[in-house]
Amino acid sequence: MTGARQQLIDSVRARFGERAAVTEPADIEPWLTDWRGRWHGRSDAILQPGSTEEVAAMIALAAELEIALVPQGGNTSMVGGATPPADGSALILSLRRMNRIRSIEKGTMRAVVEAGVILQTLHEAVAAKGVRFPLTLGAKGSATIGGLISTNAGGTQVLRFGPMRALVDGIEAVLPDGTVHDGLSGLKKDNRGYSLDQLLIGAEGTLGIVTAARLKLFPAIHSRAVAWLGLASPQAALDTLRALEAGTDRIEGFEILPRESLEAALDHIADLRAPLDGVHAWHALVEATVSQPGDEPPEDLLARLLAPLVDKGMVENAVISSSEAQAEAFWRIRDSLSEAERAAFGPATQHDISVPVDLMPRFMADAAAEIEQAFPGTHASGFGHLGDGNIHFHVRAGERGGADWLQREGPAVTQLVDDLVTAIGGSISAEHGIGQMKRDELERLSPDRMRTIRAIKAALDPHKLMNPGKLV
Amino acid sequence: MTGARQQLIDSVRARFGERAAVTEPADIEPWLTDWRGRWHGRSDAILQPGSTEEVAAMIALAAELEIALVPQGGNTSMVGGATPPADGSALILSLRRMNRIRSIEKGTMRAVVEAGVILQTLHEAVAAKGVRFPLTLGAKGSATIGGLISTNAGGTQVLRFGPMRALVDGIEAVLPDGTVHDGLSGLKKDNRGYSLDQLLIGAEGTLGIVTAARLKLFPAIHSRAVAWLGLASPQAALDTLRALEAGTDRIEGFEILPRESLEAALDHIADLRAPLDGVHAWHALVEATVSQPGDEPPEDLLARLLAPLVDKGMVENAVISSSEAQAEAFWRIRDSLSEAERAAFGPATQHDISVPVDLMPRFMADAAAEIEQAFPGTHASGFGHLGDGNIHFHVRAGERGGADWLQREGPAVTQLVDDLVTAIGGSISAEHGIGQMKRDELERLSPDRMRTIRAIKAALDPHKLMNPGKLV
Repeated sequence: MTGARQQLIDSVRARFGERAAVTEPADIEPWLTDWRGRWHGRSDAILQPGSTEEVAAMIALAAELEIALVPQGGNTSMVGGATPPADGSALILSLRRMNRIRSIEKGTMRAVVEAGVILQTLHEAVAAKGVRFPLTLGAKGSATIGGLISTNAGGTQVLRFGPMRALVDGIEAVLPDGTVHDGLSGLKKDNRGYSLDQLLIGAEGTLGIVTAARLKLFPAIHSRAVAWLGLASPQAALDTLRALEAGTDRIEGFEILPRESLEAALDHIADLRAPLDGVHAWHALVEATVSQPGDEPPEDLLARLLAPLVDKGMVENAVISSSEAQAEAFWRIRDSLSEAERAAFGPATQHDISVPVDLMPRFMADAAAEIEQAFPGTHASGFGHLGDGNIHFHVRAGERGGADWLQREGPAVTQLVDDLVTAIGGSISAEHGIGQMKRDELERLSPDRMRTIRAIKAALDPHKLMNPGKLV
Repeated sequence: MTGARQQLIDSVRARFGERAAVTEPADIEPWLTDWRGRWHGRSDAILQPGSTEEVAAMIALAAELEIALVPQGGNTSMVGGATPPADGSALILSLRRMNRIRSIEKGTMRAVVEAGVILQTLHEAVAAKGVRFPLTLGAKGSATIGGLISTNAGGTQVLRFGPMRALVDGIEAVLPDGTVHDGLSGLKKDNRGYSLDQLLIGAEGTLGIVTAARLKLFPAIHSRAVAWLGLASPQAALDTLRALEAGTDRIEGFEILPRESLEAALDHIADLRAPLDGVHAWHALVEATVSQPGDEPPEDLLARLLAPLVDKGMVENAVISSSEAQAEAFWRIRDSLSEAERAAFGPATQHDISVPVDLMPRFMADAAAEIEQAFPGTHASGFGHLGDGNIHFHVRAGERGGADWLQREGPAVTQLVDDLVTAIGGSISAEHGIGQMKRDELERLSPDRMRTIRAIKAALDPHKLMNPGKLV
């Protein structure tokens, strides 16, 4: 350990007590590797501030000693965004002790929440007050508000509520020089120059550390219904979505999956049942919710809007959940797809990509064809958030497989996918961010964008002390 | 004229034709002064690009010659944001020829609009397709989309739809080095690092020039109604707003004004009639709209929600418009207040400020008392967007008046107002921006924020060629 890192640890402990820095290797170990086990780092300590003032003081000390810090929330990054550098040069700064919900106000429909609050904890706290924070995703039991903001998280309800950026009404953060940016006052109009709040959202902790946020709340769900549709193609799914949207603003989720993914789930995951009897090339899960008891029940709404689409053949078949248990069962199929595909199909490259929504059906067909031609024997397909133009696109090794396929051909496959996405104006990172995983690809494909990002980073964090090695 | 400026003009004309640069002094003259006549500048020419490519080429040429550019749309800035420097060192770059509406898509509810399109032109174009762009304000007949984005404009419908930032889905801009940032592809999810779109919104043209934007559209208004309320105080108005919001999400506007402002309007503006017979200390104008023919008519909605508030005395009296003409007449009173106050009360300092909505009633009382104590004889009051926590707060000279009062005491009054606003977490610029007018006050009150703004500016525009002298 260099003297400077030890000095930082000592100073932190002297000012904020023993537990403000964890140095026991066994306690640090679980936080050195990302949850999928792809990136491994080293760190002498985990700093654990308990308040914004402590974060500010620790960052100021670190800046003085030129020690880099890696902010961590739930450590659920999909792109290595929270793993410290392998050389051990940085310390982890964990926000997990900053886990207070400072306020939940129904009058203004806002909550002020510290960075270390776990998403599910927030869901439960606002539900107890009869309101709702709509963003949700698979990692909700671990992911924290600070991480969700720093990665502009998406999830399954983006269709109606937007990503985290649309749900944040103000941010409190500590900047690289240790000053506190306080954007929590809840001003509905504020035109004092560049929006630092907006700059910090999605910045992956590279411009400062988010310590708290003011979040938008919505009326609680009174009831929901989920329809499961059998469809001929992604284009039919998109046409169905547009037809539903023309009739209501109450569609919250619209997810699609191909037949083979459904079959993989039914074969490999316990306790799942096929929602429909017949065989369909594609499937969609559609969720509608209502918040007022007097509104048309969501199952009636879905039945009314879907009937003419079934009549005209746009939808081949449909079933609507008749109970919360059945709605939950439909979602369980969707949520098990990643695990099912791994079990059923072996190695695959995975791509969190987005394209303009209307172009997605064509992209799925054309990109799959190009990839299967360039890498004969592979199979390319996708499932996910069609309504957001965001598909989790997978290329399976197929007959080219073998233990080392990912290592051998993965990078070339990824480059081809990224090229195809970029060519039609899409994004190589729809919701997971850049982190360590996609940094080189972003540089390769978007040098102009990267130059701007780099200039802003250098301006605000000239000594590169904030989450080094991520994004830039 | 320095050789470099002439060289730029010559190069622009050589490449893009004679009309790409206006040099006739009489043609330039109207664009050298802001519309309220407070700032005066000089410029050898107005460059007039007709396309994004031409903007990029002109900026690249200007960067090479190190000539600063001042972007102009409708020249309706309230803070001197579009007036060139007095020393004539910069050229004006007018976006007025970039006035194409590139697309209006009802499927995705988006329009792609060039920077020079006038707001009212956009309103009419989308209305012709049966949809709506909701942002509106007094200068809609002159203000352009590029200027509205660069100032994150507000206006009267922010309560429901938010400011410009909430209505922009992507931006095309030319950066200071002449590269084009294309954010128009309409991705619903895109997490490739810092959001340049968000950074450019509200940047007042200091980081690049917005050339086009993808804007969100909404269902057309089927019908609207406007209620005029008599109230005892701003607190009663706020309580009324909260009670209405608890019962509906269809309130679009909530504006308040004191008795004296109403009387000034009735006395000094032609063809206005008092909406209510009695005398009330405060008044509110409430607008509700519906977009579906089958929905509860807005006049019924307002009547149903207001009746219990009148019964319990929260609202002293109320009248609801029974025709579009009457709704328009109510709005005309609101829209004439600035002119009426100038005519009735003589010189006054004007402050476009915001505070957290719930604190506004207390602020209005406390700030007025403090100011009137510090400057005996003055009278302080405000009117405007209570629902946004944004009041146009005025301090009238009263018996201290005289022709030179504004010059003599205006700066000291402004500093006190700004101090009081800042002390309760408010903003010294709610919707008008910083421009030239508020630069020193922002520096004085928010040195940390200013340091960050300055660092970003220096990173992206190191030679200070973009709208020099504004904001930073």
